[in-house]
Amino acid sequence: MVGTAVRKAVVLVSGGMDSAVTLALAREQGHAVHALSVAYGQRHDSELQAAQRVAALLGAVEHKVVAVDLRSIGGSALTADIDVPVDAPHVAGSGRIPITYVPARNTIMLSIALGWAEVLGDADIWCGVNAVDYSGYPDCRPEFIDAFQALAKLATKAGVEGARIAVHAPLMHLGKADIAREGQRLGVDFAATVSCYQADAEGRACGHCDACLLRAEGFARAGLADPTRYR
Amino acid sequence: MVGTAVRKAVVLVSGGMDSAVTLALAREQGHAVHALSVAYGQRHDSELQAAQRVAALLGAVEHKVVAVDLRSIGGSALTADIDVPVDAPHVAGSGRIPITYVPARNTIMLSIALGWAEVLGDADIWCGVNAVDYSGYPDCRPEFIDAFQALAKLATKAGVEGARIAVHAPLMHLGKADIAREGQRLGVDFAATVSCYQADAEGRACGHCDACLLRAEGFARAGLADPTRYR
Repeated sequence: MVGTAVRKAVVLVSGGMDSAVTLALAREQGHAVHALSVAYGQRHDSELQAAQRVAALLGAVEHKVVAVDLRSIGGSALTADIDVPVDAPHVAGSGRIPITYVPARNTIMLSIALGWAEVLGDADIWCGVNAVDYSGYPDCRPEFIDAFQALAKLATKAGVEGARIAVHAPLMHLGKADIAREGQRLGVDFAATVSCYQADAEGRACGHCDACLLRAEGFARAGLADPTRYR
Repeated sequence: MVGTAVRKAVVLVSGGMDSAVTLALAREQGHAVHALSVAYGQRHDSELQAAQRVAALLGAVEHKVVAVDLRSIGGSALTADIDVPVDAPHVAGSGRIPITYVPARNTIMLSIALGWAEVLGDADIWCGVNAVDYSGYPDCRPEFIDAFQALAKLATKAGVEGARIAVHAPLMHLGKADIAREGQRLGVDFAATVSCYQADAEGRACGHCDACLLRAEGFARAGLADPTRYR
């Protein structure tokens, strides 16, 4: 398309496998990727280091970390002084919302992405929410993403002036095995990613939390070797 | 109403006059007020100090400050290295969005309020957006607040479980003079508030930025003495 500028993509990158695959998909579609990590008071820095590795390995134009300290409002095993459950996988479709749910986390992260997309101009937002999270976390459902996109149109100068700010969640309907296969196809180095809720300072996984169990099962079902670094 | 628990209100408090009046209205309706200030990289701390004063003077149960550093994404005279316009009031209805607009600011602040409301349980959100801002800032319009409320229902554990999280913007259709009168009626000490975009370290106002001009005009039109501390 001669004369068509490359559209920018603000991609939320957590350091985990889902957002890495999302970033690779945005790159595959030719977007200039501006990777964004939101430091919301996680217990350790290893996921942010993983996010930085992922952004660099997959060809992001830049990577920014915006800090928002959610520890002061508490309410989650990931930000407050609550133990992460181990060896007790969350049951998809159980209707139970896991204790690792961070109140309004995706709303907050998408809001910050929206601010950056508006500053960059001509940018869409990409995030890695998917069907597995969908089963437990309210802010990982398709209707949530649709509602956020409607909000984005009303919230921004760009939206008011008629621009489109799309929110892409390309993994929405994929399970972990599909995501692993998609990452394999796109050349994502999953050894660089960290999914564990309680990884150590070197980014090595516990192998026992919900995130570790789901991830390991994904590789197994996809028939792929699990490249995760366990401690 | 015997046996009815007091409903909690998370009130966004900036330190300015609008959010002070909003807090007083929530108190008047009998709510237990949990005041929230979002430190988004403002140039100085005097507005946060004003927010703390306002919360204490008007009887909030507690006041939390959540920091989110929007300086790294830039794009506004309030967070980036851009001069605040002086003696050139923004014209309401001009269709021009002021340079003091912070990209996605209200979306981000409401998102954090939503997270806290969810942790507290049985809490609504109150914010002081109003008709004057409405004329220039996209995220101060009624349709924006409505869209955020729809999002809140989908985004949260409480919403999924059937709870209502209302977003109240009681000043939406009031101009600055009406707000000044309402504050007078409710006993708000406007001398404790800071509206200026470039207040000094003691919270004294410049008298020349958009925020100062609108505020002074509000007191004048309401026939009230202007208690603002100018430098």
